[in-house]
This record gives sequence, C-alpha cells and structure tokens, in this order.
Amino acid sequence: MQQEAAVVDVLAVIAYGELSAFHRIAADLDLAPTVADKINLAQYAGTELTHYHLLAEHLTALGVEPAHAMLPFIPAVDAFHERTKPSTWMEGLVKTYVGDAIAADFFREIAEYLDHRTHELISEVLVDLGHADFAERAIRRAIEIDPTSAGSLALWGRRLVGEALSQAQSVAAQRVSLVTLLLNNSSESDPNRIFNRLTQAHRQRMQRLGLSA
Amino acid sequence: MQQEAAVVDVLAVIAYGELSAFHRIAADLDLAPTVADKINLAQYAGTELTHYHLLAEHLTALGVEPAHAMLPFIPAVDAFHERTKPSTWMEGLVKTYVGDAIAADFFREIAEYLDHRTHELISEVLVDLGHADFAERAIRRAIEIDPTSAGSLALWGRRLVGEALSQAQSVAAQRVSLVTLLLNNSSESDPNRIFNRLTQAHRQRMQRLGLSA
Repeated sequence: MQQEAAVVDVLAVIAYGELSAFHRIAADLDLAPTVADKINLAQYAGTELTHYHLLAEHLTALGVEPAHAMLPFIPAVDAFHERTKPSTWMEGLVKTYVGDAIAADFFREIAEYLDHRTHELISEVLVDLGHADFAERAIRRAIEIDPTSAGSLALWGRRLVGEALSQAQSVAAQRVSLVTLLLNNSSESDPNRIFNRLTQAHRQRMQRLGLSA
Repeated sequence: MQQEAAVVDVLAVIAYGELSAFHRIAADLDLAPTVADKINLAQYAGTELTHYHLLAEHLTALGVEPAHAMLPFIPAVDAFHERTKPSTWMEGLVKTYVGDAIAADFFREIAEYLDHRTHELISEVLVDLGHADFAERAIRRAIEIDPTSAGSLALWGRRLVGEALSQAQSVAAQRVSLVTLLLNNSSESDPNRIFNRLTQAHRQRMQRLGLSA
C-alpha cells in the first residue's frame, strides 16, 4: 500500500513536471534568437508533452485520475517556475539544461526503489534527448563570445538549483509516501545525502559549461 | 514556377502559423482555471506542433528549408499575436476558436487552387480536432453564468478578426505569388470578395456562441 502510494506520487510529480516543462519551454520560444532555435525548442517542448502522456496513461492504467494525482505537486512545481522565469535565451537554456538534469538525477535515484515496470517507464521519460547537447554547445559558445556573461549565468545556475532543492524538500516534507520509500529502501541513513549527491552532480555539470560557481 | 512559389508560400505561412499557435496556446496554459483545462489545452497545442512537423516535412521534401521559407511571414503572424494577447481564459478560448476557424476558412479557399497532394495535406492539418467543440461549449457556459461577459467578448472577437484580416492583407500585398494565385484561379474578379466571405462566416460563428457583434 505504502509502495503503491509512492508509485502514484512519483509518477504524478514527474507527470506534472513534464506538463509544466512543456508549458514553460514553449513560453521561452519568445526568447529564441532565430527561427531554427524556435523549431529546436518547440521540438523539445513537444517531447516533454509526449512524456507527460506516457506517464498519464500509466496512471490511468493504475486506476488513478492523472489530474487528481498531480494536484498535491502543483504548488511546488509552479512556485519553482514562478521564481525562475528566464529573462534571456541563455538563462532559458541553462534552466532547461540544469533543471532537466537535476530532476532526472533525482527521479532516477527514486525509481530504483520502485517496481520494474515503473522503473522502466521513468527511465524512458528521463532519457536525454539530445537537447542537453544542444543547450551545452549553445551555452559554451555564448560564453566564448562574451566571457563576461559567465558570472551572471553561474549565479543563475546557483539560484536554479537552490530553488529546485528547496521545492523538492517541501514536497518531501508533505508526502510521507516518498520519504518512507527513501528511508525504507535507501542504503543511506540520511536522505540529505541524496541532496548532497545531486548538488555535487550539478556542480560538475556547471564546470563542464565553464560556469563553476 | 509561379504555382510552385505559391505552394511554398502557402505551406510556409500555415507552418509558421501552426508553430506560433503552438507557442501561444502553450503560453495560455497560465490562464487555465483547472488542471483538466491545462491538459486539454496542452493536447491541443501538441496537435498544432504535429501539424507544423507535417508541413515542414513536406517543405523539406520539396527541397525547401522550412526556417527559410517561413521568414517572410514571421512579422505578420507575430504582430497578430502581439496585438491579441488574451488576458483571461475566456479571451484565450475565443481567440483559439475564432482564430483557428478563420485561418482554416482562408487556407481552405487557397488550397483549392493548388495541386492535389498539397490540397490533401492542407485539409489534413486544418481539420477540426474537437477543440472547437470544447471551446464553444466552455464559452457558451461562461456566458450563461455571467451574461454581462458577452459584450466584452463580442468586442474581443471583433478585434481578433480585424487584426487577422489586416495582417492577411499585409502578407498578400507583399507576396505576389499568393495574389497571382488567387487572381488567376479564382472565379472572383475581386479578392476582397474572399475577405467578405471570411467575415460573413466569422459573424455566423460569433452568433452561434451568443456573441453577435
């Protein structure tokens, strides 16, 4: 029962994350400097929507209404996006790159403790679809052209990860099922270790971009 | 040659229209009052993106770079959206309903003069996907609940069609291929007749919604 509640919660929070990502990335099309960038980003947003549909179908198959299951996670996800609205194309790319990567790291950790089918599904929707490469190349090029932009982008990256972790912690505090799942299954005695691992992976990604904070 | 240029122009303007519709509809997710409405609208935006891809593939098959072919139409389409940003969920629904219908009417008229395959493709991407029904029901219900909203929505509908026709005329004035196509093939001696027909169909739609202007 506890495990089932956790499965529904994990699928629902990722589903709402994908639906919001779709929405926010599509809104960033305004920031795209060229039509080619617009097309690239639209494609990426479309992929997030496809992922959302996969997760919603799985929830429905479990007898759960997706709109209902996602409700508890709306405030945290929306708050994250409200507080991290990108104001430039580069900020948007860093947000997609950093946000997707850290969310994927986090849910991959959790998926390990779930049943095989859920694990497979989550791995499928979290797979890197080439957008990370696209974002990484674009960010590195932008920093080469204008090295002074690195400082503010590094700061932006720090803000993103801070907001993401703070919202993740607020979700964890409210959803007993998720915390129980982690405590019962993880070899970690302290769930904060997971957060430390996520932060560490984030720091390495920022360094690869030339944005060491 | 003239016919080929017209085919590329028509495909490109619809393609950019779909790409922008995707973008603007996705941005309207902010206005959705419930998660169910968000999901509904996201699905609709996703359909517009699928349509964009169909058109872009067809352009590529003709040896044309979609991003390049769409360039001439960006200012008019973007100007239309800039001037008609919905500020409420109802305005967004009326815009999708009215905007899609009038664009579909217009391109269906033009598609009749193009080769069979292009005609088929355009009919496919302009097919009503049930969103019109969804929008129509939601708008009628909103007016029943608050009859005073009818006045401002009727005004909004008039503004939408005015902006759409003015942008369509500015495109027509710049793209000789499109005007030649209409003049050479249409039984109408005056292309303004087409605009009158579009306006007439629009008026009937608004009446059906209870929004007679």
